[in-house]
Amino acid sequence: MLIKRLCLIGVGLIGGSLALALKRAGACSHVAGFDQDASTLSEALELGIIDSGHTSLTQAVAASDIVLLATPLGAMPALLQQVAPLLTPGMLITDVGSAKQCVIDAARKSLGSGIRIFVPGHPIAGTEKSGPRHAFPELFAGRMVILTPLPETDATAVARVQALWEAAGASVQLLDAAHHDRVLAATSHLPHMLAYALVDCLARMDEREEIFRFAAGGFADFTRIASSSPEMWHDVCAANRDHLLAALDRFEQHLRQIRIAVEQGDSGELLAIFRRARAARDRLMSRRRAADE
Amino acid sequence: MLIKRLCLIGVGLIGGSLALALKRAGACSHVAGFDQDASTLSEALELGIIDSGHTSLTQAVAASDIVLLATPLGAMPALLQQVAPLLTPGMLITDVGSAKQCVIDAARKSLGSGIRIFVPGHPIAGTEKSGPRHAFPELFAGRMVILTPLPETDATAVARVQALWEAAGASVQLLDAAHHDRVLAATSHLPHMLAYALVDCLARMDEREEIFRFAAGGFADFTRIASSSPEMWHDVCAANRDHLLAALDRFEQHLRQIRIAVEQGDSGELLAIFRRARAARDRLMSRRRAADE
Repeated sequence: MLIKRLCLIGVGLIGGSLALALKRAGACSHVAGFDQDASTLSEALELGIIDSGHTSLTQAVAASDIVLLATPLGAMPALLQQVAPLLTPGMLITDVGSAKQCVIDAARKSLGSGIRIFVPGHPIAGTEKSGPRHAFPELFAGRMVILTPLPETDATAVARVQALWEAAGASVQLLDAAHHDRVLAATSHLPHMLAYALVDCLARMDEREEIFRFAAGGFADFTRIASSSPEMWHDVCAANRDHLLAALDRFEQHLRQIRIAVEQGDSGELLAIFRRARAARDRLMSRRRAADE
Repeated sequence: MLIKRLCLIGVGLIGGSLALALKRAGACSHVAGFDQDASTLSEALELGIIDSGHTSLTQAVAASDIVLLATPLGAMPALLQQVAPLLTPGMLITDVGSAKQCVIDAARKSLGSGIRIFVPGHPIAGTEKSGPRHAFPELFAGRMVILTPLPETDATAVARVQALWEAAGASVQLLDAAHHDRVLAATSHLPHMLAYALVDCLARMDEREEIFRFAAGGFADFTRIASSSPEMWHDVCAANRDHLLAALDRFEQHLRQIRIAVEQGDSGELLAIFRRARAARDRLMSRRRAADE
C-alpha cells in the first residue's frame, strides 16, 4: 500500500477526485478529510471520497503519511500555519494550488526548516465545476501534474508525491516555481480573465437577450471556463498577480494590433495573425493527440 | 420534392452540409455545384455532396430553383454581380454570410429591382474546419438560422428559404440585418478575435514550448475557434468592421476593469465581475439545455 493514511484538507473537486482515484488504484487505505463545514464532510463520506471526516485539523492530520492541501489558494497560508505544529516525523505535506510561489512563501514562513518536507504541486486538470459531488476518479488520467520542489526539498518527499499522482493516472513534470507561475498565467489565468470579461461584457449589453439566444456552440465552448468558481479565481488573481498583470498587458497589446488592422482594413496583417494563431493551435492539438495515443 | 435543383456556389463545410442534409431528407433532387477549383468539385462529387460540378456559373445556375451563395464573404459581391444576369423568373437567391448588411448592399447594387428575390441568411452553426470533406448532414440539426429579409423581399421567397433550412433540421428566426450584425459581432466575431489574439500572443512568447506543453483541456476548448479559416475570418472583419470595432472597444474596457481590480487587489470588484459572468453563462447554458429537450 502506497499510502496508509492520506489527510485531505479540502474535499472538493480536486482533492475528492484524487482520493477516489487512489482508492480505485488500491493505493491508499484511509482518507481522512478536513473541512470547516460538517455538511461537506458528510457529503464526502457518503460519496466514498473520505473514510473519516474531521472538523478538527489536529484529528485530521494525526497519523497521516501525507497531508494534501486542496483548498482555494487564499485559505492556504492560514492552514499551513495551523498544520505546521501538527506535522510529525515521516509525514510530508503537498498542495494543489494553481500558483506556486505564493504557497512556497507561506510554507517557508510557517514550516521553517520543515520546508524540506513540503512538495509544491499543481495538477493541470479540472473542470468548471467545484465541490465533492463533481469529483470523479478519472480526472487525472493522462493529465500532467507539475511539481515545483525547492533546492532544499527532500528528494524522498518529491518521489512519494510523484508516486501518489502516478497512482492516480497522471504524469509528473518538475518545473521551477517562477517558471510555472509565468507559464500558467499565460495558459490558464489569462484565458479565465478573458472568458469572465467577455461574458460579463455581453451580459451588460442592451441586446443581451438576443446575444445569448443567438450564441452558437463555439461561444459555449469559449466561455465554459467563465462558469468556474469566482472565489477560487479571485484567489488566483491575488496569488499570481504580477505574472497575470504581465500576461494581461501582453494580450492587450496583441488585441490592439488586431483592432488597428481591422480599423485600417490591413488584410495582410490580419491574415498573418490569424494564420500564425491557427498554425500554433493546430500544432498544439496534434501534439495532444500524439500524447493521447 | 421541395427543390428540383439547388445551385450551390461554394461546396465547403456549410454548403456541403446543407446539400447532404437536404438529400437525406429527400428535399432536393439535384445539387449543382459551382467552384473555380475543379479538384474541389471532384471531391464534392465523390463525397455525394453535389450531383453535377461546374466551373461555369452560367451552367451551374441554369434551371435551378434556388441559388445558394456559400463562399467566404469577400467573394460574394463579385459573385452576385456575375449571377445577377443569369437569374430567371421563379428562381431565388440566398446566402450564408456571417455578416448581413454588406451582402445586402452588394446584392442591391447587383440585382437592382431583383433584390426582392434575394433572401439574406446566416446559419448559426459551423465548426472550426472548412472544405467539403468536413461537411456532414447533421450540422444544422437543432441549430438556428437567421434570415434578415428587407421590406421589399418577396414573402414567398422567404418562406421557401425557411422551408429549405427547416428541411435540414434547423429552426428559422427573422431579424433586422443591422441588429444581426451587432449581435453577431458580440457573440461570434469578437470571441474569434480574442481566441486568435490569445494564441498568437502565447505563440510569440519565449516560453511557448512550455506554454503549449502545459496547456490544459480548458485551453483547448477556449482556443478551438482559433483553428477557424483565416481567410473567412479576414472577410468577416472587413464585412462587419464597425460593429466589430465597437465590440472590441467594449471588451477592452471590461478587461481594463479587471486589470485594475487585479492590480489594486480589489476583491469586491473581482468577485462581482466573476459572479455576474458565471451567473450569465449558467443562465445561457440552462436555456440551451431546455431548448435541446
